[in-house]
Amino acid sequence: MATAPSTLPLFRNPKPMHNITDPNISEARKELIGIVGRGGIDDIPANLQSRSRTEWSPSPGSTCAALIVFPRSTQDVSMIMKVCHRRRIPVTGFAGGTSLDGALASTRGGICIDFSRMNRILQVHARDMDVVVQPAVGWEDLNARLAEMDLFFPPDPGPGAQIGGMIGTGCSGTNAYRYGTMKDWVISTTVVLADGTIVKTRNRPRKSTAGYDLTRLIVGSSGTLGLVTEAVLKVTSKPENEQVAVIAFPSSSKAVSTVIDVVQKGIPLAAIELLDDNTMRAVNESGYSSKEWKETPTLFVKFSGTTSAVQEQVDVLQTLAEKHGRESFESSSEPEQIAALWAARKTALWSLIAQKRDPDDKFLGSDTAVPISRLAEIIDKANAKIKAAGLLGSTLGHVGDGNFHTSILYGEKDRVIAENIIADIRRMGIEMEGTVTGEHGVGLALRDMLELELGESAVDMMRRIKFALDPLCLLNCDKIVRVEPNDGQ
Amino acid sequence: MATAPSTLPLFRNPKPMHNITDPNISEARKELIGIVGRGGIDDIPANLQSRSRTEWSPSPGSTCAALIVFPRSTQDVSMIMKVCHRRRIPVTGFAGGTSLDGALASTRGGICIDFSRMNRILQVHARDMDVVVQPAVGWEDLNARLAEMDLFFPPDPGPGAQIGGMIGTGCSGTNAYRYGTMKDWVISTTVVLADGTIVKTRNRPRKSTAGYDLTRLIVGSSGTLGLVTEAVLKVTSKPENEQVAVIAFPSSSKAVSTVIDVVQKGIPLAAIELLDDNTMRAVNESGYSSKEWKETPTLFVKFSGTTSAVQEQVDVLQTLAEKHGRESFESSSEPEQIAALWAARKTALWSLIAQKRDPDDKFLGSDTAVPISRLAEIIDKANAKIKAAGLLGSTLGHVGDGNFHTSILYGEKDRVIAENIIADIRRMGIEMEGTVTGEHGVGLALRDMLELELGESAVDMMRRIKFALDPLCLLNCDKIVRVEPNDGQ
Repeated sequence: MATAPSTLPLFRNPKPMHNITDPNISEARKELIGIVGRGGIDDIPANLQSRSRTEWSPSPGSTCAALIVFPRSTQDVSMIMKVCHRRRIPVTGFAGGTSLDGALASTRGGICIDFSRMNRILQVHARDMDVVVQPAVGWEDLNARLAEMDLFFPPDPGPGAQIGGMIGTGCSGTNAYRYGTMKDWVISTTVVLADGTIVKTRNRPRKSTAGYDLTRLIVGSSGTLGLVTEAVLKVTSKPENEQVAVIAFPSSSKAVSTVIDVVQKGIPLAAIELLDDNTMRAVNESGYSSKEWKETPTLFVKFSGTTSAVQEQVDVLQTLAEKHGRESFESSSEPEQIAALWAARKTALWSLIAQKRDPDDKFLGSDTAVPISRLAEIIDKANAKIKAAGLLGSTLGHVGDGNFHTSILYGEKDRVIAENIIADIRRMGIEMEGTVTGEHGVGLALRDMLELELGESAVDMMRRIKFALDPLCLLNCDKIVRVEPNDGQ
Repeated sequence: MATAPSTLPLFRNPKPMHNITDPNISEARKELIGIVGRGGIDDIPANLQSRSRTEWSPSPGSTCAALIVFPRSTQDVSMIMKVCHRRRIPVTGFAGGTSLDGALASTRGGICIDFSRMNRILQVHARDMDVVVQPAVGWEDLNARLAEMDLFFPPDPGPGAQIGGMIGTGCSGTNAYRYGTMKDWVISTTVVLADGTIVKTRNRPRKSTAGYDLTRLIVGSSGTLGLVTEAVLKVTSKPENEQVAVIAFPSSSKAVSTVIDVVQKGIPLAAIELLDDNTMRAVNESGYSSKEWKETPTLFVKFSGTTSAVQEQVDVLQTLAEKHGRESFESSSEPEQIAALWAARKTALWSLIAQKRDPDDKFLGSDTAVPISRLAEIIDKANAKIKAAGLLGSTLGHVGDGNFHTSILYGEKDRVIAENIIADIRRMGIEMEGTVTGEHGVGLALRDMLELELGESAVDMMRRIKFALDPLCLLNCDKIVRVEPNDGQ
C-alpha cells in the first residue's frame, strides 16, 4: 500500500480495543455519578435491553450496554465522553428509539447515553424562522409548539422520533417531496466528539460557505462521529388551505407516470404517496379506515397554499391523472373528509401488521430509492417476487422522491425466502443507480450493501473519516462501516 | 495532549513536505506527458500566472504553478494525482476561474490541473430531472441546453463560473432564496482523492441516507479534499410567467422589514434582492441603465409560476411594501420591461466599478450573512462606517437569505482603512451569530476569520478531516484551514 493513503480499507484500521471489564465499568460508574448524580445512572436489565433493540430494530447479538447515563447538558456529555475516552468504553446514543436497521444496537456493550433529560426547546426565533433545540425534543411536540406561532417544521418520520435520532438518521417522511429531508432543515449542530471536544458546526445564518460542511457530515452519521447535544433548525410557515386527493389507477406504472409528470412540471404538492393494491387490500381488511377502498394502486396527494394555488394544482393533477387512465379521483378540503381520506395512508403500516397470520410472524422491509424513471418497474418486479413466493407483502412509497418500502410478513419457516426477496429488491435498486436506503439509514443491517452500492473506495473513504474523528471507535461502533471483517453482527 | 484525539490543532499537523524542485517537476512532466500527451501540458508564464490570480482574487505571494495539465477524463486525473502523490507535488484545480478570496492561488507552486477539456454534458435524464456533467461545464451553457427541454439549473453565481468551481465553492446567487444553494443541487460527485483513488460519493436517486454524506463534504471544500471530475446535478422545470417588481423604500430597514414578512409568509418568490441608496446612485451615474432611478434603498423582486400564483404574490408583496412605507412600486410582466427593470440589479457591480476615481483604485468586498432579524442593523452600520471614513462604497444583498455584499472602492492610501472597515463588518456579522462567508467560500483570505466565527475546535475538526484524506497536504494546500502558522499568505 502507498504511504499516506486517502482511504482506510477494512483490515488496515486499528482493531477496536475497548475495555468493558467489570472493574473498568465500575470505576467509570463512580466518575459518571460525579457528573450526573446517582439519579442520572440506570442499570436495570430491562431498561438496558430496551435501549439496544426494539421490535422494529432487532439486534442480532445479545449484547447491550452495561449502564445508561442521563446527561442534562452539552457539558455533561463532554465530561461523560472524556471518562469513556480515557477508559476506552464504547458509547451509543439514544433518543426516541424509533430507528430501524439496528442503528441503536449497543453491539460493543459499554455505555448508553440517553438524552431524555435534554428535551427542551431552548429558543424560538420567529423573525429568523429558526429554533434551537435539545436532542430529545420530538418532532410532533416541536410542531405543536410552533403551530401556536403559525410555524412548521416539515420532517415527519415515524411517530415518537426525536431530533437527535432524526439528525443521526438523516430521516424524512411524506413531506420530503415538497420540503426536502432532515439535512435541509438543520442549520447547525453542537456535537461532542469521541474525546469530549465540543464543536459547534456552524453559526445561525440560513446560508453559509464557512469551511467544510460539518453540519451535513453529522446529519446521517448515526452518532458514529459525534453526539448531537443541540441543534439549530430551520422552520417555515405553517401550510394553509390543505386539501387531499385520492386517485385510483389500474396499475402502478400508470400511477408513477402521473407522478413523473407532476415532478417534471415542478408542481409543489405537499405530499404524494403511492399505496399499491396489496396495501389497499390490507387497509380494507384491517378496518382501520371507515371507508371501503378500490383495491388498486392508489395515489394519496396533499396540497397546500393559497386557495387559488391549491385549486390550480388540483386541476392540473386531475388532467394528468386522466391522461394516464385513472380509475377514480376524489378530493376534499373539509378537515373531516381530509382526515378520513388520509387515514388509509396513515394507518397503512398498522393495516399490514394486522394481516399477521400468526402473532410470531415477523416483518421485513426495504427502503430503496431509485431514479424515478425506474420506479414503476422496480415496484412491479418487487411485488411479482412476493407473489411468486406465495408470501404476504405490499409496497408503499414516497413516490415523488423515487423512494418506496416493500414489506413482507413471514413466519419463521419462510425467513430465508423473505430475506432473499428483500435483498433482491435492494440489489435491483442498486442496478438501477439507486440506493438501498432512501431515509432509514445504513445502521447495522445494510453495511455490506453499502459497499455494493457505492463501491469499496467510497466506503474506505467513510472509514477513513470515522477513524480520523474517532480513532478508538468508541461512538456507535460497527454502524455504517464495518471495522472488523467478522464482528458477529 | 490526550492520545487518540478527535481534532487536529495547528502545530500538531505534519508540516507539508512538498518537492517542487526543478528535477522533480521535470521528471513529473515526462510522466504527465505520458498521460495527457505533449499538447496536454502548458508552462507559458502568463498562463501559469493567470491561473493563480485574478483581479477579483489576488494572491498575496508571487508563487504560481510550474505546469498546467489538461486531463480529458477521470482516469487521467487519477493517474496525474498518482504521479503527484508519489512525487509529493502540490496540486490546485482550475475551472472557470471566477472565485474570490484566493481559492485558486497556487500558494505552493507545483501543478495546476485545468479542467477545460472536461467540458461535456454527458447525460441528460429528462424523466429523472438530473444531468451528468464534467467539471468545466458552465452554468450558463448548461441552462442554454436545458432550456430546449424546458428544464432549469438554478444556482447562478458570477458569469463564467463552471460546475467544478461551483461545487468547490458551494456557491449560490440570486436564485438561492427560492431554490437553495449549490449543495441542494448536487446529487453526487465523482472525485479523485490526493492519492489518486476514485470515489463516487453517491448513486443517482434524489433521496438517500447511504452512509456519511460525502457529496456534501465535497461541496464547499474548495478542491482541498478531492478533485471533482464528474457530477450528477438535479434540475427542475423552467420558471414560467416571470414578472419583476422594483420597490423603493425610504430606508434599508423598511425594505428589510418587508423582506422578513415575505420570508415569514413563505412566499416562494423567485428572487429578492436589495440595492442600497449608494448602489442606486452608482447605477444612475454609470449610465448602464437607461432608466433614472430613485436613489433610495430598493428591492428588486422576481416572481414566477402560474399566472394566478404570480398575480397573488404581486398583490401580497404590494400590501406588505405599502405597510412598510414604500415610496414606489413598479412591476411588469413584459419581457422587455423586465429586462429594463432587472438591468439595474444585473449591472450593479459594473456600475460600482465605473465609479473608480483612479484606474488603480482597488475593490474590496464582504460576503457576510446574518440571521435576517439583524440584517437592516448591520447594513446600516456598514454604510455608516464607510460614510464616516469618507470612502466610496455600497451594499447590495440577497436579502431573503440574510446575505449581503458591502463593497469599497479605494486608492492605495486608504487601503488600511478600507481593510479595517471590511474586517469590522465581518466581525459584526460574527457577533450577530452570522458568517463571514455566505456564498464565496473561505479560500485563503478568510481562514483566520473562520476560527473567530466557529471556534478553534470546529476548525481543528476540519483540519483533522483534511489531513485524514490528504496527509501530504497536496490538494489546494493552505485553503480553508491553515496548515502552518506563518505561511506568508
